Amino acid sequence: MRLHAREFKEEMGPMVVDKSTTAPVNGAPASYGDLRAVFINCTLKKSPALSHTQGLMDKSIALMRSEGVTVDTVRFIDHDIATGVYPDMREHGWKDDAWPDDVWPLVQAADILVVGGPIWLGDNSSITRQLIERLYAMSGLYNAKGQYVFYGKTAGALITGNEDGVKHSAMSILYSLQHIGYSIPPAADAGWIGEVGPGPSYLDPGSGGPENDFTNRNTTFMTWNLLHTARMLKDAGGIPAYGNLRQAWNDGERFGFDANPEYR
Amino acid sequence: MRLHAREFKEEMGPMVVDKSTTAPVNGAPASYGDLRAVFINCTLKKSPALSHTQGLMDKSIALMRSEGVTVDTVRFIDHDIATGVYPDMREHGWKDDAWPDDVWPLVQAADILVVGGPIWLGDNSSITRQLIERLYAMSGLYNAKGQYVFYGKTAGALITGNEDGVKHSAMSILYSLQHIGYSIPPAADAGWIGEVGPGPSYLDPGSGGPENDFTNRNTTFMTWNLLHTARMLKDAGGIPAYGNLRQAWNDGERFGFDANPEYR
Amino acid sequence: MRLHAREFKEEMGPMVVDKSTTAPVNGAPASYGDLRAVFINCTLKKSPALSHTQGLMDKSIALMRSEGVTVDTVRFIDHDIATGVYPDMREHGWKDDAWPDDVWPLVQAADILVVGGPIWLGDNSSITRQLIERLYAMSGLYNAKGQYVFYGKTAGALITGNEDGVKHSAMSILYSLQHIGYSIPPAADAGWIGEVGPGPSYLDPGSGGPENDFTNRNTTFMTWNLLHTARMLKDAGGIPAYGNLRQAWNDGERFGFDANPEYR
Amino acid sequence: MRLHAREFKEEMGPMVVDKSTTAPVNGAPASYGDLRAVFINCTLKKSPALSHTQGLMDKSIALMRSEGVTVDTVRFIDHDIATGVYPDMREHGWKDDAWPDDVWPLVQAADILVVGGPIWLGDNSSITRQLIERLYAMSGLYNAKGQYVFYGKTAGALITGNEDGVKHSAMSILYSLQHIGYSIPPAADAGWIGEVGPGPSYLDPGSGGPENDFTNRNTTFMTWNLLHTARMLKDAGGIPAYGNLRQAWNDGERFGFDANPEYR
Repeated sequence: MRLHAREFKEEMGPMVVDKSTTAPVNGAPASYGDLRAVFINCTLKKSPALSHTQGLMDKSIALMRSEGVTVDTVRFIDHDIATGVYPDMREHGWKDDAWPDDVWPLVQAADILVVGGPIWLGDNSSITRQLIERLYAMSGLYNAKGQYVFYGKTAGALITGNEDGVKHSAMSILYSLQHIGYSIPPAADAGWIGEVGPGPSYLDPGSGGPENDFTNRNTTFMTWNLLHTARMLKDAGGIPAYGNLRQAWNDGERFGFDANPEYR
Repeated sequence: MRLHAREFKEEMGPMVVDKSTTAPVNGAPASYGDLRAVFINCTLKKSPALSHTQGLMDKSIALMRSEGVTVDTVRFIDHDIATGVYPDMREHGWKDDAWPDDVWPLVQAADILVVGGPIWLGDNSSITRQLIERLYAMSGLYNAKGQYVFYGKTAGALITGNEDGVKHSAMSILYSLQHIGYSIPPAADAGWIGEVGPGPSYLDPGSGGPENDFTNRNTTFMTWNLLHTARMLKDAGGIPAYGNLRQAWNDGERFGFDANPEYR
Repeated sequence: MRLHAREFKEEMGPMVVDKSTTAPVNGAPASYGDLRAVFINCTLKKSPALSHTQGLMDKSIALMRSEGVTVDTVRFIDHDIATGVYPDMREHGWKDDAWPDDVWPLVQAADILVVGGPIWLGDNSSITRQLIERLYAMSGLYNAKGQYVFYGKTAGALITGNEDGVKHSAMSILYSLQHIGYSIPPAADAGWIGEVGPGPSYLDPGSGGPENDFTNRNTTFMTWNLLHTARMLKDAGGIPAYGNLRQAWNDGERFGFDANPEYR
Repeated sequence: MRLHAREFKEEMGPMVVDKSTTAPVNGAPASYGDLRAVFINCTLKKSPALSHTQGLMDKSIALMRSEGVTVDTVRFIDHDIATGVYPDMREHGWKDDAWPDDVWPLVQAADILVVGGPIWLGDNSSITRQLIERLYAMSGLYNAKGQYVFYGKTAGALITGNEDGVKHSAMSILYSLQHIGYSIPPAADAGWIGEVGPGPSYLDPGSGGPENDFTNRNTTFMTWNLLHTARMLKDAGGIPAYGNLRQAWNDGERFGFDANPEYR
């Protein structure tokens, strides 16, 4: 039976206030020293060229490290990573592939993944897509519970550019990450762009990027929501292993899906 | 210091197996009778016209109800809902607006939101966008902790069409929902389309939709991951209120954002 | 036989110069007094509320009018337009529908369509989607040659917001318009957003929008490319009617599609 | 003055018929032997692995060749092409870069560009994005008229996958191509996917892909609309060089943009 919305409102009482509390803020509600994070920068520029995206990523990294999190960073284009959708492309005709040994172990070990990237023509860089493809290639692996290997991890996105496209880029990244098994916390993306059109990039003098209050707030909120979600998932031993086991589904288990139609 | 990936792999040992476990599946790990969900159908068709999207939504609804979840359903276009980005458009020149009294209380009360919608020209329907706009309009409200009002809730998306566009549509919906504060669980979208081009819709005889194993599995996994995430969030009292309080940020609190640069 | 690229380069000689010519600019190469354009504003705000998008659209409109083009403008939300994918929703249960009599004739008569819209959560407004749905609904009609009714027309997009999403929004609009039959000229989109985050909107004092050189240049280029393309199409009597006739295809004509495989 | 839509309808008379003509279809309205096209396949798989996307591209190629068009084909990943946004990455730290000598001359010489690509996680492949980046890198070059170098050319997109994402992928490709100067003809994208979920790919036996009437019709229409548009542009000497000259804009020319506000 559907409770009428108006009655419902009376029953529930006021749940919402019109502005955020000004109550004193206490410190962090937990410790995070046992968490690992990996930040992967999908800039098109090899080291040592300046990466503006790294400039923004470094702010989130510093905050995590100051809370004791072990943070690895990868500049994807600096590694000789093959292109394709298999776990190890050396088994598929590529001479070299740094993914299986240099990058994947860091992703696998990390409770938190942050994908950082630039914007080109309003969309993600080819390197961001290459990373997504390599992550997707691992989705045939399972964790010890029998879930897809990314279950129990959490992820976010950081984007910089100087024109437009933060949300479009984050949209595709976050979609891909949840699709393969990451939990996405509230407000899991942040970014910076200047006014429409060409102009200074994030780390250029006078860009206003590093001082941008909106970007800094969103970066902070993203970082903390990743920490809260990772803490919660780790303490719970990940996402419960019921209703999401592919092999069991293949074996005929339906987890209640064929529920009595009277429920519909 | 960055642990080298290869050493790391040895240290961590095998965390991944190559196929999902065949261990016996136990029942649901918790009870869900205290949870509320709202399913909002963004079809362009008013009742009593047949909504194919509702056909898919009903499967997830039945599963939730069979687990004791209280489920409300809204067919958005059946309500006289105004267009705009204010909480109550009657205060902005619209004669009628069913959002504040008929729909919002259900969203506000629900631990879980599932947005269902059709695909037109590869993108979300105008009604899906209207819903997103009205949800966005509420993001100036805060919960009792002082967080944006959607913090502590979880959301997913169900899409049907007969050509192409499930992922594009889900991408935009899930992006919007995380952006305003929902937590997105693993694999939080499912959908059905037939082979490219025109053809039978989901509920049409012979469409193959209701029997599609891929769609049914994804719908089941989505439903359970919403339940697990809602359970976890509810038991934890939501997302901890540190690092994500807008008013506190405005008052100068930085939640460690200005961490010592030596961490970078 | 494939000409080797290097030989090819020598054969062709230098086709490209490194900077745009500084040769004297002559006037417009044709007259445009016989052209009609319709600009449709998909703001969420009813008149008389200020529409920032209209502010940008007015610049393109003024340029077209100064060249003698007959320009109609429609503020979509001011009309009582039904939602759905049929040409006249009054035949499908809606009491009112201003589309068939008030808007469609202007679209049908126009050589040029410009869709203007705001950005909400990085995507098009519900009104923009509603317009696209209604246009799509007309794609079952054909012109006098037997082509889809939008063949021979040309279209562009103008977007304003104060955060991010110009390209994502234009991407979906232009995709839809070419899909149903419009020709899209070079550089057919322009827009304005401020620096990331909240801030003044286009027409707000101090926004910098109306003076933005990048936006103004793109708006000018879009406007002229629409005029050039409309001129070319009108003079040619539209797109030739061969290879794009649906009824003929249904009747078995293949327009050479079953070309001899030796060509492959 | 705005002509009222209803009067307008009467004045214009019936322009639209309810179904496509069944009049006899004549042959191609022109000859195309002087046109050049380049088809670039953005598969992730190096030769000699089977590319399903190539299977679809070959149909369009055969049709063009049967009309006398000179067609070059490039399998992008087979070439040692660098990543980045400069015309020649060898000047920016890359040892090799096949773009400037092996691929760019073919793009530059071609009247028609068709980008073909696969879908991964509902989006374009990394190789498609790499191609877009390299094309974008050339947009600092100008043609002999002083326009961006891609003006006067026309482009389309062909997509294959086995799940979902044809339109999302084409959307981003076509957007990028018009943005840098290509003209996009009506219905400039085609593609094939099977029913949602895993299944046979385009060239796999029993996929139904090569026989799909919708895909074949769209591929034919796209191919002919590219030919018609290329013919029209070539005969006209490209897009007129007024209103779209960057250097002239930089020098202060406004092409009527500062039109008298009374026109607004």
